Amino acid sequence: MDILHYQQEFLQYLTSKNWIQEPKNLYEPVDYILQIGGKRIRPVLTLMAADIFSNDFKKALPAALSIEVFHNFTLVHDDIMDDAPLRRGKATVHEKWDINTGILSGDAMLILAYQYFENYEAKIFQKLAKLFSKTALEVCDGQQLDVDFETRNDVTIEEYINMICLKTSVLVAAALKMGAIVAETNEENANLIYDFGLNLGLAFQLQDDYLDTFGDSETFGKQIGGDIIENKKTFLYLKTLKVADTETVNKLKYYYRKKLKENTLKIIDVTRIFKMNNIPFLITKEIEDYTQKAFDTLSKMDISNENKQKLKAFGMWLMKRTV
Amino acid sequence: MDILHYQQEFLQYLTSKNWIQEPKNLYEPVDYILQIGGKRIRPVLTLMAADIFSNDFKKALPAALSIEVFHNFTLVHDDIMDDAPLRRGKATVHEKWDINTGILSGDAMLILAYQYFENYEAKIFQKLAKLFSKTALEVCDGQQLDVDFETRNDVTIEEYINMICLKTSVLVAAALKMGAIVAETNEENANLIYDFGLNLGLAFQLQDDYLDTFGDSETFGKQIGGDIIENKKTFLYLKTLKVADTETVNKLKYYYRKKLKENTLKIIDVTRIFKMNNIPFLITKEIEDYTQKAFDTLSKMDISNENKQKLKAFGMWLMKRTV
Repeated sequence: MDILHYQQEFLQYLTSKNWIQEPKNLYEPVDYILQIGGKRIRPVLTLMAADIFSNDFKKALPAALSIEVFHNFTLVHDDIMDDAPLRRGKATVHEKWDINTGILSGDAMLILAYQYFENYEAKIFQKLAKLFSKTALEVCDGQQLDVDFETRNDVTIEEYINMICLKTSVLVAAALKMGAIVAETNEENANLIYDFGLNLGLAFQLQDDYLDTFGDSETFGKQIGGDIIENKKTFLYLKTLKVADTETVNKLKYYYRKKLKENTLKIIDVTRIFKMNNIPFLITKEIEDYTQKAFDTLSKMDISNENKQKLKAFGMWLMKRTV
Repeated sequence: MDILHYQQEFLQYLTSKNWIQEPKNLYEPVDYILQIGGKRIRPVLTLMAADIFSNDFKKALPAALSIEVFHNFTLVHDDIMDDAPLRRGKATVHEKWDINTGILSGDAMLILAYQYFENYEAKIFQKLAKLFSKTALEVCDGQQLDVDFETRNDVTIEEYINMICLKTSVLVAAALKMGAIVAETNEENANLIYDFGLNLGLAFQLQDDYLDTFGDSETFGKQIGGDIIENKKTFLYLKTLKVADTETVNKLKYYYRKKLKENTLKIIDVTRIFKMNNIPFLITKEIEDYTQKAFDTLSKMDISNENKQKLKAFGMWLMKRTV
């Protein structure tokens, strides 16, 4: 499949860069976090979109790198804020070095992300940088809302969807649109692929909520029940509050007020509550709706059927974890 | 004097913006740090340069704001790294809120700084953003070198000058050049005013080193001897290591290995060592040399004599703290 090809081309481009400049203490952490992997979904999207709209993905490599460096910048700073010791099974930057290094190297990455746009002429440069700034601020807004929600008890499902949209989906959408901008396709196509990404990103994030409780620990890659342990007010929780009877709601709220040392029983009982209230079905429907919305934008896109199939195949590949 | 006028116009522009958007917890700290003052030297420089090269400073207001927001971003993140409780006599952002807020609001400010360039058409936008990214990375490099130097015992004067150049002078230089770019003057003028700012910035920073030990606590605004208490390897210290006899060098090094609770005697004795080794004279000469270098660039600039006098007057105003 093409995705693997884009991944390889991107990795080759990434590793061709000499990350470690002087002062070394600033750039070694940048090199470290960029090398420890991940699926490189966002840069792949940029390359794929450029390929679809111009049959030339190579000119999108700097934009793809920008997206990936920005994404990793958010990981470095978010890991400090979450006090997370591990990222992709390895020590986080602030654990391996220290918090100050994490802050400063992260800052440098955000600036580097803008610098890659300098590979493009002024008009493309401006379009990319504008979209990038808008998106980057939205990601900050989403992160702040996520923090705010931890201490709020009146978060609605609409607010939650808005938060995950800002925190994760806009970047997926922007990654695709950047490919479209580099390919110099028309504005309607660029906006349609943005919407495709936005809806697919929402579907993906909701699926992440679903899998965190109902997934297979072998394939999911994270601990099952992590969100329940952390009392995260995900779609599963918020939807239950909306549809369950008062007694169940109170029980669930009671569970989500406490942080326990031993969580086995809590996970089992909360999972049971979700199931009894039909939440797996309701969230699956939501995921399918957003996926379908994404696919619907394809019909309006001014590209070949073959390319529409390619985008659809990517969507299926991304969402295949559910089935 | 014009400087006051630029300051007022800038402040009016700054306060006309509605800083506090949603989510409030992200943007209130941005509003807070931008409102607590400072001399606004950098944005004034941008306005002055635009005025000199095009007789229209108002179109440079967004670029001036970008510089000021960036500068305040560096303060927010540096204050976290330095664990500083106060900034301009008020609580720092991470003290008033918390470290996570400081990190995230700072990140948002760095992005906002780029967004103000969107007020300009594509070619100007690209020139501004390119200069901005280069400068911002240099400031990060300078901050990292400053941290690195704390634990190094072989820092040379050249390395020190390079560090303060990156940490502070390049931003002064870029502030001026941005005004020149907005004014669409020729590239030679833009580069000359950059050099003017770079040398003046170095003179200013060295003067800061001088005043930290030899200034008047009434007018300097910071505690006299702060650098000595903190064992900061400033020009005064490094120059002494270079010119003093072995016994004095060892004594000074001995002092700079310890952090004391009571510093009165240390300050008196280290100040005496500096004086005995003619350091006040040597640094004053250095400051004058850089100031003169700055003024020399004026002769090459393609602007009216009146405007050259205006830039020189600004330089004199900035440096008048010495005399």
